[in-house]
Amino acid sequence: MRTLPLAFALCLSSHVAFAQEPFHETLTSTAESVNDEIWSADSRQVTPNCEHDWSITKETLRGGRQEGVDIITVDNGVMQIVLCPTRGMGILKVTSGDLQLKWDSPVKEVVNPQFVNLASRGGLGWLEGFNEFLCRCGLENNGHPGTDKFINNVGDEAEMELTLHGKIANIPASKVEVVVDRKPPFALRVKGQVYESFLFGPKLQLQTELVVLPGENTFQLNDTITNKGAQEQEFQLLYHANFGSPLLAAGAEVLVPTHNVTPFNDHAAAGMKNWSKYEGPTAGFVEQVYLLKPKADHNGHTMALLVNRATAQAASIGWSIKQLPYLTVWKNTGAAADGYVTGIEPGTNYPNNRSVEREAGRVPKLAPGESREMTLTFGLHSGGNAVEAAINQITVLQMSGQGIDSPNSTTTPRQ
Amino acid sequence: MRTLPLAFALCLSSHVAFAQEPFHETLTSTAESVNDEIWSADSRQVTPNCEHDWSITKETLRGGRQEGVDIITVDNGVMQIVLCPTRGMGILKVTSGDLQLKWDSPVKEVVNPQFVNLASRGGLGWLEGFNEFLCRCGLENNGHPGTDKFINNVGDEAEMELTLHGKIANIPASKVEVVVDRKPPFALRVKGQVYESFLFGPKLQLQTELVVLPGENTFQLNDTITNKGAQEQEFQLLYHANFGSPLLAAGAEVLVPTHNVTPFNDHAAAGMKNWSKYEGPTAGFVEQVYLLKPKADHNGHTMALLVNRATAQAASIGWSIKQLPYLTVWKNTGAAADGYVTGIEPGTNYPNNRSVEREAGRVPKLAPGESREMTLTFGLHSGGNAVEAAINQITVLQMSGQGIDSPNSTTTPRQ
Amino acid sequence: MRTLPLAFALCLSSHVAFAQEPFHETLTSTAESVNDEIWSADSRQVTPNCEHDWSITKETLRGGRQEGVDIITVDNGVMQIVLCPTRGMGILKVTSGDLQLKWDSPVKEVVNPQFVNLASRGGLGWLEGFNEFLCRCGLENNGHPGTDKFINNVGDEAEMELTLHGKIANIPASKVEVVVDRKPPFALRVKGQVYESFLFGPKLQLQTELVVLPGENTFQLNDTITNKGAQEQEFQLLYHANFGSPLLAAGAEVLVPTHNVTPFNDHAAAGMKNWSKYEGPTAGFVEQVYLLKPKADHNGHTMALLVNRATAQAASIGWSIKQLPYLTVWKNTGAAADGYVTGIEPGTNYPNNRSVEREAGRVPKLAPGESREMTLTFGLHSGGNAVEAAINQITVLQMSGQGIDSPNSTTTPRQ
Repeated sequence: MRTLPLAFALCLSSHVAFAQEPFHETLTSTAESVNDEIWSADSRQVTPNCEHDWSITKETLRGGRQEGVDIITVDNGVMQIVLCPTRGMGILKVTSGDLQLKWDSPVKEVVNPQFVNLASRGGLGWLEGFNEFLCRCGLENNGHPGTDKFINNVGDEAEMELTLHGKIANIPASKVEVVVDRKPPFALRVKGQVYESFLFGPKLQLQTELVVLPGENTFQLNDTITNKGAQEQEFQLLYHANFGSPLLAAGAEVLVPTHNVTPFNDHAAAGMKNWSKYEGPTAGFVEQVYLLKPKADHNGHTMALLVNRATAQAASIGWSIKQLPYLTVWKNTGAAADGYVTGIEPGTNYPNNRSVEREAGRVPKLAPGESREMTLTFGLHSGGNAVEAAINQITVLQMSGQGIDSPNSTTTPRQ
Repeated sequence: MRTLPLAFALCLSSHVAFAQEPFHETLTSTAESVNDEIWSADSRQVTPNCEHDWSITKETLRGGRQEGVDIITVDNGVMQIVLCPTRGMGILKVTSGDLQLKWDSPVKEVVNPQFVNLASRGGLGWLEGFNEFLCRCGLENNGHPGTDKFINNVGDEAEMELTLHGKIANIPASKVEVVVDRKPPFALRVKGQVYESFLFGPKLQLQTELVVLPGENTFQLNDTITNKGAQEQEFQLLYHANFGSPLLAAGAEVLVPTHNVTPFNDHAAAGMKNWSKYEGPTAGFVEQVYLLKPKADHNGHTMALLVNRATAQAASIGWSIKQLPYLTVWKNTGAAADGYVTGIEPGTNYPNNRSVEREAGRVPKLAPGESREMTLTFGLHSGGNAVEAAINQITVLQMSGQGIDSPNSTTTPRQ
Repeated sequence: MRTLPLAFALCLSSHVAFAQEPFHETLTSTAESVNDEIWSADSRQVTPNCEHDWSITKETLRGGRQEGVDIITVDNGVMQIVLCPTRGMGILKVTSGDLQLKWDSPVKEVVNPQFVNLASRGGLGWLEGFNEFLCRCGLENNGHPGTDKFINNVGDEAEMELTLHGKIANIPASKVEVVVDRKPPFALRVKGQVYESFLFGPKLQLQTELVVLPGENTFQLNDTITNKGAQEQEFQLLYHANFGSPLLAAGAEVLVPTHNVTPFNDHAAAGMKNWSKYEGPTAGFVEQVYLLKPKADHNGHTMALLVNRATAQAASIGWSIKQLPYLTVWKNTGAAADGYVTGIEPGTNYPNNRSVEREAGRVPKLAPGESREMTLTFGLHSGGNAVEAAINQITVLQMSGQGIDSPNSTTTPRQ
């Protein structure tokens, strides 16, 4: 009488083995000249045993300056994450019930980089497409525009005008893949490759992976930057995570375990006392930028938290200070119509012009073939208990955390 | 027995009420990710009672640098107007029998702004797509390229290189709608919205409406510029209306009721005596630009007229000097192959660099939320009688018209 | 009994007459708003009597920065030539068995010019799309970036920043046609038109024709540059032919019959002794550029040859020094990952900034309506005998060839 069940079990096992190969689909591949305009997959097709109804959908936007822009929406059953392969795999928006990671930029469309001239307005052209929740800044450079040196085609040191926050957010991904595990916890993955690579220039590759589990309120970015060239190469990477209404409002606060906080300029120095607290939308507010050296646990892990006034909603970013030692907090609480937003921005550097950062020892280099990994975890915390738990994590880090010394840091303790 | 007729009347009335709702179609909407490639409507479908066979057609151009460019042709039965949503809702060409509003630019394609770098050639890149009959210049700035100040992201006064005639003609419309009245006079409307709006920059919205009646030889532009931001905002707007062969030819003349005519530079001063008269195509002709302060009637209404040599064809632009106090006449009667053209250009300013115009008090500002309306009427006059009537209008304005003083005007009377 | 054959002959003749009209297809025409995404023709349809199975195929690339890029593959039965109308009719790659004309650029995609800002990185933005085997440099200018004068819209001499190698390689063709002879030798032709033409700028037209015979290992480019404007116009044209692995390898050599070889700079001077010989890929190698004045036969015909180490494979370029008097050899034998490549570049000039070339008398002018023709023949030589024959041609030219004096040449004999 055991035969039948065994046969059944074998059959099932074989089936499961097959089924356990992850689901894989290439949505974009320049090598194969593929770029589907519409595509979707969902839990019913791919993971019928998963208790959460997830879906991954690709569409191509139409009209105005968003003509031809691809977006991918990952819905894990409780949270919707909208990615934009055309804009360097940035994240446009994350929604979990009434908690949203987004801001209301004066730029309403998802702008195709075809329409962006980064050099416009004295190197500030990047702003003409800027409306993402999460926008990578780099790879060859990020930070303020202005003159910096580089090596030109004849091997001479020459000068170029850097543009604000570099190119990566305005380079379409060359390859985009969806990978879904067929076994618990049924991880959903969107992978992308973006290149800043050309003759007499950098040969940098960004491989990025968004991972989210069905039913969870967190997601992870696993990024790898690789120097595909045969010579040492500088790079810069900053994660420009932007939060606006309604999470950001008067009384909201950013919590970071930190050794010190340095105002970016005199104007920021004047607001130093309340650097971590936010006012409501204020017409004419001029940005205040603070440069932090976060503390971390013994593994190098740290976290920043944006908490709303009622301590009822919060958003967190967790990362390793071994990978991203510096944190910039950008307070830009202007009027709603002008862009009411704060940026919480872990990076390899602060957003000065690269020439300043190089001088300060904050422009890392990659040896030929060398890779650097960056892992960031984003959490959406709803309800008093969840927010308190997150605040406690910050408190523990602040009390016991350590910094990793950066010998040439120009930051000075202010608190 | 009254029941039935009443029911019928109600039914009819309800039907008529429904039918009198204007016909409405959204051709492009970035908010809804809509952009139809092909679309058309005509009198048979929409206004079967209209005596004129009108049609409105949208198509998407293909090939070279015009790949993906949308154009809309409004045919009101006697006149064809070709609009280009992709190029800021400019008007490419107007045809009424053998009278055409157009010029033969060395640019033969309708260039997608994706291929235009406005900063090219010392800020003259705008010329690489310039071939419209009517092209708006603005909104943040227009006029000559060159250095001007602006307020950058950290609130400091910084310098930027302005580019010729600003960006608006190279920004695709975010929303395009067709509205047609179902009752006489069956007005045909094409509406568009174009944005120059981004963080640390202007938040300007252009809403434009082209209105034309079936069977008429005139059309109107109703434009509204709105400062959607929360801070005071400069703007500039100039309507670059361009006329070429065959309307423009040796012996053609521009008639404007005006207080004074100021040559733009020494070269224009040398041609001052014949500023209003045109020569035939002349290889090597260097542009001559004249700055006018038009007179207007007591409502502020004025008009400019381009009359052909035989006084048999003319084109007029009517507008209010309360809205657009300045008029620029651009004579560029080079060889046909090089671009034989004249511009008649009502504006908020003259086409100097914005820094010059600001100094002269000719850069208006919009308060937060404030709008400014501009209404222009274009007339195509065919036949001696029609042309004489238009000339008479100019004569009346010249004899009795008044100017509205602009205290800081730098123009000096020359005639 | 002769009647029937006669009738048959007549019939055949009539059929042949019809059949002898060349096959013609317009793939792209901006004038007609045509741009087919997919198209193909082959010998079975068009030339059933041709012994070689040829085909011509058009496709549109997808994904990343190559979205919407058109490529045309001409397969003549023994050789595949891939053209790119979207990138100024450049040639991406030529393959004949295991002999390939191509190089491995750090740019992996075929980049749509929509994504290229030529002014980027101090005027070196051209490099961000550069990966063609054959790329035209011009038309208004080519060579190094930097300041040069030009005449602006008001007729004044002004300054502009030239960008590396000009615009032509980043301008999509406005017209693309395929023409195939229906009679032997069944010539296959792809024709393209590219314009650098706008108000207050050049009015230059490039008409290019690729001609290849079925079964042959050579192909020809017949280019005509025309000044469509009414005023004299400078132009520059350089054929940037780029060769990489495996043809280029340690021990490869470039053979050119030449009067003299001038190093471009001190760094090139240091490598002068071995200017014609190639090393293997060398990380950190800085480009060495040599300026040549080729000798030619009494018709002005000359030739350059790249021979591999084993003298078993070679590629040749033949042209007239009456059309292209100057030759630049660009040695850039860096690491494979950085771009291991040599350029053999016949031109109207050397690749200095145009201001330098003008000073040296190497910037030709076209009178209004004037055309200049350029004919280049590319040969793929496989096997010792074929290579020896090509080398012999060079030897004959070197021994007996003449130069055409260029009075203002700045080159100095070095050998």
